[in-house]
Amino acid sequence: MNHHHDNDDLRSLIRTVPDYPKPGIMFRDVSTLLLDGAGFRTMIDRMAAMVDSDTKFIAGIEARGFIVAAGLSYALGLGKVMLRKPGKLPGAKIGVDYELEYGSDRLEMHIGHVGAGDKILLVDDLIATGGTALAGLDLIHQAGGIVEQSLFIVDLPDLGGADKLRHSGIKADSLICFDGD
Amino acid sequence: MNHHHDNDDLRSLIRTVPDYPKPGIMFRDVSTLLLDGAGFRTMIDRMAAMVDSDTKFIAGIEARGFIVAAGLSYALGLGKVMLRKPGKLPGAKIGVDYELEYGSDRLEMHIGHVGAGDKILLVDDLIATGGTALAGLDLIHQAGGIVEQSLFIVDLPDLGGADKLRHSGIKADSLICFDGD
Repeated sequence: MNHHHDNDDLRSLIRTVPDYPKPGIMFRDVSTLLLDGAGFRTMIDRMAAMVDSDTKFIAGIEARGFIVAAGLSYALGLGKVMLRKPGKLPGAKIGVDYELEYGSDRLEMHIGHVGAGDKILLVDDLIATGGTALAGLDLIHQAGGIVEQSLFIVDLPDLGGADKLRHSGIKADSLICFDGD
Repeated sequence: MNHHHDNDDLRSLIRTVPDYPKPGIMFRDVSTLLLDGAGFRTMIDRMAAMVDSDTKFIAGIEARGFIVAAGLSYALGLGKVMLRKPGKLPGAKIGVDYELEYGSDRLEMHIGHVGAGDKILLVDDLIATGGTALAGLDLIHQAGGIVEQSLFIVDLPDLGGADKLRHSGIKADSLICFDGD
């Protein structure tokens, strides 16, 4: 259950850049929200209040997901797991390749840190088609973790990513929806 | 003035991965510190206590610098500026190319957000040779901001980056030093 109208104050801090990265796309730019110190605190506090109480770690997707994960990590005192672009993690790791609209990408995660059955919250700044989030879910499962919840600042529901997560049995909540994208 | 021995509790949470990214390099891996919720909070609180009181924004360097910037942003209620890899920022922006040991890289920043004379704290997870930090400094100056202070979790002083910042008139402090790197 989302109550997006409660977050109109935060919505007003998100800038829309038209025709980025290509004509016809309305890019929802959270950088203007991050620039607002009070707005960022409010955002993190509202997200923190939504986090399941038995969560053990917060997994953030590189790079803006790191910002959400770090804020929640500090606010809740929970450890943070980095889901990174390829070639960035120095230790023993696993990886998942996934398809993008054009081409493919890869997400990697250290192994040996998350214990079997640890409950992990998956976070990112925005959920669109969900390809990256599903890759993150796959990685955490491979590492032995359990994901029951995902949290985003922004959901673009028309692109179906949040519904894909829900169909995988994962809660997918966000503070703000932009319909019609 | 650094008091690195006061942070031996945090130092013990940083893992050293030998021979990464190439033989002979001791990679100081903060991912094990980030994994520790209490350790991350302690780290951010100690860094927050070092931040100049007239700081207006915190500039974090992609990607691990975003984690430091986000924690400090939440703790202090200050806005955050992203210094990003090329091709990531949707709005009007400036960029700086800089040399790496092999090849070059580029850092970009939105314009129109930082006002003339705004005091910006530059943060990253680690300072080594300082090439990226100096590029960030250049960018912030071009955008009209003032940098008087930089903060890092880890300093590798033998690589000289922190001294380069100091020679540019910037305070460069860190919680933990690893000598002999």
